[in-house]
Amino acid sequence: AKSSAVKKEKSYSHGKRGMTLEDDLNETNDYYVHSGMAVIHKKPVPVQIVNVDYPKRSAAVIKEAYFKQASTTDYNGVYKGHYVDFEAKETRNRTSFPLQNFHQHQLDHMKQVTAQRGIAFVIIRFSLTEEIFLMPYVQLNNFWERMLKGGRKSMTKKEIEETSYSIPLGLHPRIDYLKIIDHLLK
Amino acid sequence: AKSSAVKKEKSYSHGKRGMTLEDDLNETNDYYVHSGMAVIHKKPVPVQIVNVDYPKRSAAVIKEAYFKQASTTDYNGVYKGHYVDFEAKETRNRTSFPLQNFHQHQLDHMKQVTAQRGIAFVIIRFSLTEEIFLMPYVQLNNFWERMLKGGRKSMTKKEIEETSYSIPLGLHPRIDYLKIIDHLLK
Ligand SMILES: [Mg+2]
Ligand SMILES: [Mg+2]
Repeated sequence: AKSSAVKKEKSYSHGKRGMTLEDDLNETNDYYVHSGMAVIHKKPVPVQIVNVDYPKRSAAVIKEAYFKQASTTDYNGVYKGHYVDFEAKETRNRTSFPLQNFHQHQLDHMKQVTAQRGIAFVIIRFSLTEEIFLMPYVQLNNFWERMLKGGRKSMTKKEIEETSYSIPLGLHPRIDYLKIIDHLLK
Repeated sequence: AKSSAVKKEKSYSHGKRGMTLEDDLNETNDYYVHSGMAVIHKKPVPVQIVNVDYPKRSAAVIKEAYFKQASTTDYNGVYKGHYVDFEAKETRNRTSFPLQNFHQHQLDHMKQVTAQRGIAFVIIRFSLTEEIFLMPYVQLNNFWERMLKGGRKSMTKKEIEETSYSIPLGLHPRIDYLKIIDHLLK
């Protein structure tokens, strides 16, 4: 067993380290909140706590805990009265995006959100080329259903380009996805 | 230091144990989701992870972590297209509700949510009498501002009755707060 000390909780989201899509989205969401444009946050990483120490005069210390699978998506909030809900994932693949990055319960959650007239989508990124896309839930679900019916377990880059909105990487905010939502709301 | 094993994460929310308001709200939210009425969830308890063990052929074990203060409220989601956001707190007091149960950053968050046309409120409970109230953010903020100006550090039961909506305790769902939201939306 290898032990390692860490500084940032976000390094642990889903056991993947060194990912920058989450950093870019956190910066973007901070920008939106501070400029009064939207209130959208990442949820805390869900942890199953097994053992806790209560020292007499200091803070409780969690001594044993495990990462557990989130029951919903990672980001949600409000924009101009609209409920916004999304999951963000990236791949180092160049020509396709694996659907195994998502889970059935996340698709179920996005379906429920859509039924309540919330805006559900995924933000996906091809890390090596820094290309970012916003794919609405309905489109993602089509590819998901195709997989469940025995079809391919990924979406090709071309399919993504045809069904999603490209988000240019900016400086501040880095991933200006509200512009796409404005378009969806028209 | 006293060590204790636990079964449920929720026992640890905010270091308070044996509270039932959260259980009742979780039951209520499950009911809403399963009956297709709303999609509202409690966020995971935020934890600051310091040290993690990576055993070779099994799941990562968090060896040292600390509870940290949430930066937002505990519950959010979507109801008929509306963004819903709230914090839930209870007291064992009989005649007043201490404002120290809330934090400035939560008030700030609810203010931001309100500015984005989300529905922000608190659900408060007098545990000993099982009385539950929904108080809209604007009312809570009035009491909060009074405290900041040197006024009392709590809201009297009478003040709560005058500014909030009583929620009768039910069987299924136990705390039917959507009925109050319907009223707010009229
Ligand atoms: Mg996730
Ligand atoms: Mg809280």
